Amino acid sequence: MIFDLKTTDKDTKARAGVITTDHGTIETPIFMPVGTVGTVKSVHQSELKDEINPDIILGNTYHLYLRPTTDILEQAGGLHKFMNWDRNILTDSGGYQVYSLAERRKITEEGVKFQSHIDGSYHFFSPESVMEIQRSIGADIIMAFDECPAAQSSYTYTKNSMEMTHRWLKRCVAHLEKVPPKYDYNQSLFPIVQGGVFKDLRKQSAEFISEIGADGNAIGGLSVGEPAEVMYEMTDLVCDVLPKDKPRYLMGVGTPINILENIALGVDMFDCVMPTRNARNGMLFTAHGTINIKNKKWENDFSPIDEMGITFVDTMYSKAYLRHLFASKELLGKQIASIHNLGFYLWLVREARKHILDGTFSTWKTQMVNQMNKRL
Amino acid sequence: MIFDLKTTDKDTKARAGVITTDHGTIETPIFMPVGTVGTVKSVHQSELKDEINPDIILGNTYHLYLRPTTDILEQAGGLHKFMNWDRNILTDSGGYQVYSLAERRKITEEGVKFQSHIDGSYHFFSPESVMEIQRSIGADIIMAFDECPAAQSSYTYTKNSMEMTHRWLKRCVAHLEKVPPKYDYNQSLFPIVQGGVFKDLRKQSAEFISEIGADGNAIGGLSVGEPAEVMYEMTDLVCDVLPKDKPRYLMGVGTPINILENIALGVDMFDCVMPTRNARNGMLFTAHGTINIKNKKWENDFSPIDEMGITFVDTMYSKAYLRHLFASKELLGKQIASIHNLGFYLWLVREARKHILDGTFSTWKTQMVNQMNKRL
Repeated sequence: MIFDLKTTDKDTKARAGVITTDHGTIETPIFMPVGTVGTVKSVHQSELKDEINPDIILGNTYHLYLRPTTDILEQAGGLHKFMNWDRNILTDSGGYQVYSLAERRKITEEGVKFQSHIDGSYHFFSPESVMEIQRSIGADIIMAFDECPAAQSSYTYTKNSMEMTHRWLKRCVAHLEKVPPKYDYNQSLFPIVQGGVFKDLRKQSAEFISEIGADGNAIGGLSVGEPAEVMYEMTDLVCDVLPKDKPRYLMGVGTPINILENIALGVDMFDCVMPTRNARNGMLFTAHGTINIKNKKWENDFSPIDEMGITFVDTMYSKAYLRHLFASKELLGKQIASIHNLGFYLWLVREARKHILDGTFSTWKTQMVNQMNKRL
Repeated sequence: MIFDLKTTDKDTKARAGVITTDHGTIETPIFMPVGTVGTVKSVHQSELKDEINPDIILGNTYHLYLRPTTDILEQAGGLHKFMNWDRNILTDSGGYQVYSLAERRKITEEGVKFQSHIDGSYHFFSPESVMEIQRSIGADIIMAFDECPAAQSSYTYTKNSMEMTHRWLKRCVAHLEKVPPKYDYNQSLFPIVQGGVFKDLRKQSAEFISEIGADGNAIGGLSVGEPAEVMYEMTDLVCDVLPKDKPRYLMGVGTPINILENIALGVDMFDCVMPTRNARNGMLFTAHGTINIKNKKWENDFSPIDEMGITFVDTMYSKAYLRHLFASKELLGKQIASIHNLGFYLWLVREARKHILDGTFSTWKTQMVNQMNKRL
């Protein structure tokens, strides 16, 4: 993997770059649509490519391991072939999902024992097994196995957890060297900065992670319940430590405003279920604010969903029609809203990139944050 | 509406024709995808047009009356504009849905009092009100208000019901003359032959309906539980009575085999929820038989869904991938299967038309029925 940092904004810490992998280039800043089990929910691969047009999408190791299973993915020749997606894929490590299981998992130094949310069967993830699973899935970017402590965790818990995450990282790196890629392209491991909401721990973790010399670095354990201002403070602090010549990925963030604010702090990559999950609940993100399309006020508004027309759905369907689909619990409603929201997220990061490149990011960002903060 | 009967098959009673309305031409035999509340479930209008390519789709008066309501549809300028579909639309009369409500409706000579399946509110449909509702919806082909008796109804019940349906037809025709179309195109009323499974009643009804001189004629009350052979017997008998120079629409039928058999008996138009409903349950129709994609046997079958490649989904996705989507309860599974099945149904009627036109329908039909009868 090569990262070519094109420019850093003069007024903020925002960066524009290009990542090159064996599956092509990724222009940063980038938002990665989440394709949990090998499908970006309710969106055809062709729509994803032609309408939403991300250079990279995300898959979830935990979900893919349970279904369709690594065995099937290996027989298919990896996730790219299985789902018919020839651009980049990143997989998380399964850590976040496993920890969300709460009562259904037990963490030890060796790894995590957990019960499947599907059938209650027992499984064990270790840094080593998660590396092997990610070799089988075959994403271009794979994540180190980490513990993601809850937002309200104590200093002591967070410190111990972070130190274990660091030890696990060493095991991930060591094991990957023993297990070569299964397919005919390279995979890059991104380690994950942890440390909760504690500045000294975040700094310590960022320093540890930086020394690994990975192709890219991730920031985990944020957007888990803490106030946005605290998240920004942590991101800022961590980005100041992480190497400038490697892409930085802020995991699981966030709203369009969160994304612009974090771009301004030096983050290059994002993922979040919000555009698709909120879409399925009838919430639309636009450049002029959010829309709850279930609201009665849209009942006879026959104007297009979004005059900007970023994707085909925006001008093909009216707000009144989309509201009717949600009122009638029709699947097409979820499909339309998902394409719209993802189209908007990708538009937003592409616009951010343009403004970083032409030196107008800061004023543009301020204007966009004001606009997007409204409820329509 | 003009119906141009191009040819009648030399070996069977199959016909190929062209219907022309203010929204364009409809090549017959045709299958009309069902768009209950103004959406063919889980299919984008653009996919419907570009991939499935029907000249006409169907909407349900009962559902559209309740949601989005005729008021909203009138404000939108009719269903075509509301859902952004510029080809033909046919609406049923609401009769069938109202009768399916069973305990929730009361039939009198005046009309039917019923309770909404959504909120239990009381409503009343009469031949007159249903004509007005269909004026507001604005379909190109609208259906007379009829009673559709259950398959097990007695001779006496069926006879009385048929006679009331005939009286209701007169009221529909009279009322339509008083209420002009609401939009800038014409609407054609199709009356409906009833008579259950009783030959003399079917003949009597077909004769009555023929005398109306409508633009086209429908056969109702079949495929409601009676054996396929009985349905074919009734269709055959009715088609022999109905005028040759008008299109014949067999309501709510059926499997791909039912469709070919009825085409052979002289039916020109079909609709059915089967391709989409069964799709959502993981059943695929193909030229070589049916597939239950949930079956474990497809787990590692990485061949395309359908080598024939009628629609883009057939070659974009593998059987193993589609099975995985169903196993994971992913919406994309329903979307893929729906497009596949509708694409196949439309392919089937287009092929039938070609074979009628070139005089090879009979042998082709026999071969197709044998092939499609298999479970893969």
